Amino acid sequence: MDETRDGEGEVFPNISADISSAGPVPVPFSSVNWSGSSQPVEAKTKAQGMSHQSDVLPCDQLRDQVIGNQSSHTQLMETLLHLRQTVDDCITQLTTRPPQLDLPLEEQRHNQATGEQEAFLRRVVNLLQSGAMWGLGLQAPRPTLGPRDDAGGGQQAQLSRQLDQLVHQLSHLEVAFVSHDLSNRGIDISAFERSKFQDFKTYQGDKYHEDKNTMGFINLGVSENKLCTDLMTERLSRSDMNHLEDALLQYSDQRGQPFLREEVARFLTYYCKSPARLDPENVVVLSGCCSVFSALATVLCDPGEALLTPTPFFGGLVMGSYLYSKVELMPVHLDSEITDGSARPFQLTVDKLEQALLEATLKGKKVRGLLLINPQNPLGDVYSRDSLEEYLEFAKRYNLHVIIDELYMLSVFDDSVTFHSVLSMESLPDPNRTHMIWGTSKDFGISGFRFGALYTHNKEVASAVSSFGFLNGISGITQYKLCRLLQDREWIDKVYLPTNHSRLKAAHRYITNKLKALKIPFLNRGSGLYVWMNLKEYLQPCTFEEELLLHHRFLGNKLILSPGKTYMCKEPGWFRLIFSDKPLPLKLAMHRFYEVLAEQKRDLRVKQLEDPQKE
Amino acid sequence: MDETRDGEGEVFPNISADISSAGPVPVPFSSVNWSGSSQPVEAKTKAQGMSHQSDVLPCDQLRDQVIGNQSSHTQLMETLLHLRQTVDDCITQLTTRPPQLDLPLEEQRHNQATGEQEAFLRRVVNLLQSGAMWGLGLQAPRPTLGPRDDAGGGQQAQLSRQLDQLVHQLSHLEVAFVSHDLSNRGIDISAFERSKFQDFKTYQGDKYHEDKNTMGFINLGVSENKLCTDLMTERLSRSDMNHLEDALLQYSDQRGQPFLREEVARFLTYYCKSPARLDPENVVVLSGCCSVFSALATVLCDPGEALLTPTPFFGGLVMGSYLYSKVELMPVHLDSEITDGSARPFQLTVDKLEQALLEATLKGKKVRGLLLINPQNPLGDVYSRDSLEEYLEFAKRYNLHVIIDELYMLSVFDDSVTFHSVLSMESLPDPNRTHMIWGTSKDFGISGFRFGALYTHNKEVASAVSSFGFLNGISGITQYKLCRLLQDREWIDKVYLPTNHSRLKAAHRYITNKLKALKIPFLNRGSGLYVWMNLKEYLQPCTFEEELLLHHRFLGNKLILSPGKTYMCKEPGWFRLIFSDKPLPLKLAMHRFYEVLAEQKRDLRVKQLEDPQKE
Repeated sequence: MDETRDGEGEVFPNISADISSAGPVPVPFSSVNWSGSSQPVEAKTKAQGMSHQSDVLPCDQLRDQVIGNQSSHTQLMETLLHLRQTVDDCITQLTTRPPQLDLPLEEQRHNQATGEQEAFLRRVVNLLQSGAMWGLGLQAPRPTLGPRDDAGGGQQAQLSRQLDQLVHQLSHLEVAFVSHDLSNRGIDISAFERSKFQDFKTYQGDKYHEDKNTMGFINLGVSENKLCTDLMTERLSRSDMNHLEDALLQYSDQRGQPFLREEVARFLTYYCKSPARLDPENVVVLSGCCSVFSALATVLCDPGEALLTPTPFFGGLVMGSYLYSKVELMPVHLDSEITDGSARPFQLTVDKLEQALLEATLKGKKVRGLLLINPQNPLGDVYSRDSLEEYLEFAKRYNLHVIIDELYMLSVFDDSVTFHSVLSMESLPDPNRTHMIWGTSKDFGISGFRFGALYTHNKEVASAVSSFGFLNGISGITQYKLCRLLQDREWIDKVYLPTNHSRLKAAHRYITNKLKALKIPFLNRGSGLYVWMNLKEYLQPCTFEEELLLHHRFLGNKLILSPGKTYMCKEPGWFRLIFSDKPLPLKLAMHRFYEVLAEQKRDLRVKQLEDPQKE
Repeated sequence: MDETRDGEGEVFPNISADISSAGPVPVPFSSVNWSGSSQPVEAKTKAQGMSHQSDVLPCDQLRDQVIGNQSSHTQLMETLLHLRQTVDDCITQLTTRPPQLDLPLEEQRHNQATGEQEAFLRRVVNLLQSGAMWGLGLQAPRPTLGPRDDAGGGQQAQLSRQLDQLVHQLSHLEVAFVSHDLSNRGIDISAFERSKFQDFKTYQGDKYHEDKNTMGFINLGVSENKLCTDLMTERLSRSDMNHLEDALLQYSDQRGQPFLREEVARFLTYYCKSPARLDPENVVVLSGCCSVFSALATVLCDPGEALLTPTPFFGGLVMGSYLYSKVELMPVHLDSEITDGSARPFQLTVDKLEQALLEATLKGKKVRGLLLINPQNPLGDVYSRDSLEEYLEFAKRYNLHVIIDELYMLSVFDDSVTFHSVLSMESLPDPNRTHMIWGTSKDFGISGFRFGALYTHNKEVASAVSSFGFLNGISGITQYKLCRLLQDREWIDKVYLPTNHSRLKAAHRYITNKLKALKIPFLNRGSGLYVWMNLKEYLQPCTFEEELLLHHRFLGNKLILSPGKTYMCKEPGWFRLIFSDKPLPLKLAMHRFYEVLAEQKRDLRVKQLEDPQKE
């Protein structure tokens, strides 16, 4: 992991020094970083002179080496397939380690994993040293992902895809080569973090900017609302925000500053339409909703215990639960098909919950609770009051906690949709086991504030979660600003929310019209910052492998979307697209989106034409 | 846990409704909260009319009930001793559960613990219902801790102490009665948090204020530097602090904003006297140094593994390591006696480190690293360059990581003492296993900013720790202010540091003169915000039980100090006193300190006179 220092280095580390001499040169594997090589030549070409990227990307160099020399497809393909098999085997070995073992086993596992890594390292180095990778090669046509080179026909396209896939897999394996300085869980955390945040790091290193970097990445993958930063900046710049007092500079109540908890209670009473005044003593604030969720998962479940989680769902929660707390999220898989008992795609029913609970129990899994997201992310579904009650009754029936994430509650922009907060209910079926999470990241577009709040009637849970304030606290000055913000109902009701909703509506309309024009199916829900769309028409075969390749093709064209697998969606082909960006980048993003799909379609057509020829 | 809402409620919950009718009335135990009842009547009396505490404290009521009726000492003492035995047994049962078990055992443990709690509950309720507690009683003298009532002689004082002790133990057991809504670790976390932060909560609910609450608690227990809030407030109020830009409102690099990491690297290069420019890529910032430590412990050690930790040491780190990460801190006990091979009290030597490592290894414990604090907390020791090198060489010899916390590096106020940062060394023995932590909480007196930074040459460790940025990130606006602050060398060097050091020096001189006048031994070290002092002359017998009682006596007089047990000190009688408070509260604190010690001395004298009579 010897990354260079500039933005480029994070994504495309400088491996050229090691391989540019080509031929069968022994390469110390540890100095080779494979990540990010799915960057297609085409996007790069476009970026020349605009982006701050260097002109020759190392991965392009690798690819040029591969194809610049003379050899047969077959030979290279064989080598690649062999290498992929090796990689697949090792992925399987490395990822099927059981999650929770006692100590001696934990140690065995470390030794075993270390041995595996070394064996794998030797195999890959042998392959590389054999020169198979760049001593062999292909005739001219560059295996780009674009339409410009399709003279070479479908075989090249297929090869290109496989190369991409290989390199992608290798980039995920990168972490297997960390030294033994890390603990087993350190290795797991590191691997997960890299795979999870690779796209975001890519984006951070080469962000789109309407003046300075028009060829940078546009991020419609991370859920942020950038539509009202003008309003927010103006509000935060007013003088009332800059108050200072000693208490803000010193340690505070672990649960959060009393003035902020009071304001949160007032705010939720009003916006959640609570029948009774909510109690500040039931509020705990921590640095972000994922912190709150992670703390909740920890104090409600012991390692190995589980929460039922309807999928697709926001995958970031896995990080907070499994990775740190070793709490499993047991999927309740929802179908895109409208089946018996459901009235719409991906509908959550009590039948499905009961089925999932039964399956988990039969597997010997201890289920402690149910995780709900309302408005749902990524579906955009807003639960009806009846549905919500049914889910809560189900949970009560089986003594399950309900963690309900209402992070998008003020981002319901379709006036015909009514949101029902769990705090609006006249009487909760099981108030002591119902825990609500909210924050300002999405509804106020200030994810950088790192603010999340728990509301729970259960004093013990509140107290246990508050102990995390020690590690996950928010700075006093930020708490003060948040309090002032939530206090300003006049501004929220008359300025911020109407503007935000009208801008969300416009952006949503723009995106959905584009999708309609492209005949791409999507869920039209009128809430949240995202559209859940179905691109399986563009996958052949319709597999998660192909979904990932398409995702990388978007990346190659400097567009970040989130593939459905990230949301544990059981069907390949779904993507989440964030539409709450400003008009200019949004327009450019849709242009890039269109380009990639057009290329993809062209490749698929060539592939279809070739397949019968093969038979 | 039905706490009332005002500040008082946290410390002195309203139990009077349940017990004021006296006599053998069945009391639902769950509605009785025993915490904080060590509050002596004397301090309360003083506070009347000044403090916002209510006039009658529930625990005093309980005590009045106990002593208002007619009965013999013996009967009550027997009952109390019986109750204490029950409590002790249950404490033993509840606290000797093994820390790390596989899942089926984990479940067994939950069931067992639940059973234990219920059995204990029944036993205590039976005792209460039998009327032993308040059906019996004592003749008049109120068992206060003060000198005003010592007409009753030593037996009453002893009884009073035992009552205090009992109630204290019960308050620690409080958590055993949480419902089954929490996981096992949730229960542990909650219990630890309550015991650890009880004093701080007490303080939060009834803070001393020089105008508004002169009878409030003065906190010389929590390490905060309040000497320069005037300078800091002025600096933070300048207009350069209030800059806003979109990037500050949005998600940032997990490791912290690049501008802040760059500034931290520059800052540490300068103030740590690094021979080479430090690299911002080696910096990770998280919400506080305990967050950084907890993340480090997690990614370096698997559950059950250990870090060697010279004691006494800052006990808050236990929370970050054991509680969340299940990493054990193996004590390397240091002696107050100057023994072979040491030149001063509590000196850390390589011999002691090797001995501790050997013992741990013999116990089958896997030691992954060594935790150092320099300047040491609570001793104030500043390691010489030679010592530091010896410790690092020791670690390298045994392949141990070194986590070195230099949180007080700019708080060395004695000009004759030279601090050597680990980052100042020409060559580190094992750079890949040396990880330094620093933050602004102590040196800049802004613990409320929640800022901690890691500097490590190990890219893998930096990357793994940065994954915690997801949960423990700092708000963008706070990161911006921190950057501006660290950038302003002119102000730091010419205004802040000289003023801070001269005020620290003056406060230290004031406190140490008082201690000298009282003939209290202490370590005179010239660094940090604290004095480590020896009060064993005031304990008889010199046990941790008596240490805790003395601590409660201080609390009773509205003064918070930290007893040595909190620092895993192996010898009872040591206390840490924070002197970095403003002159007025500091003076008042020393008055209260003096009062308590005088009372304590009087009681001990009575006890000494009584003991021979007994024989």
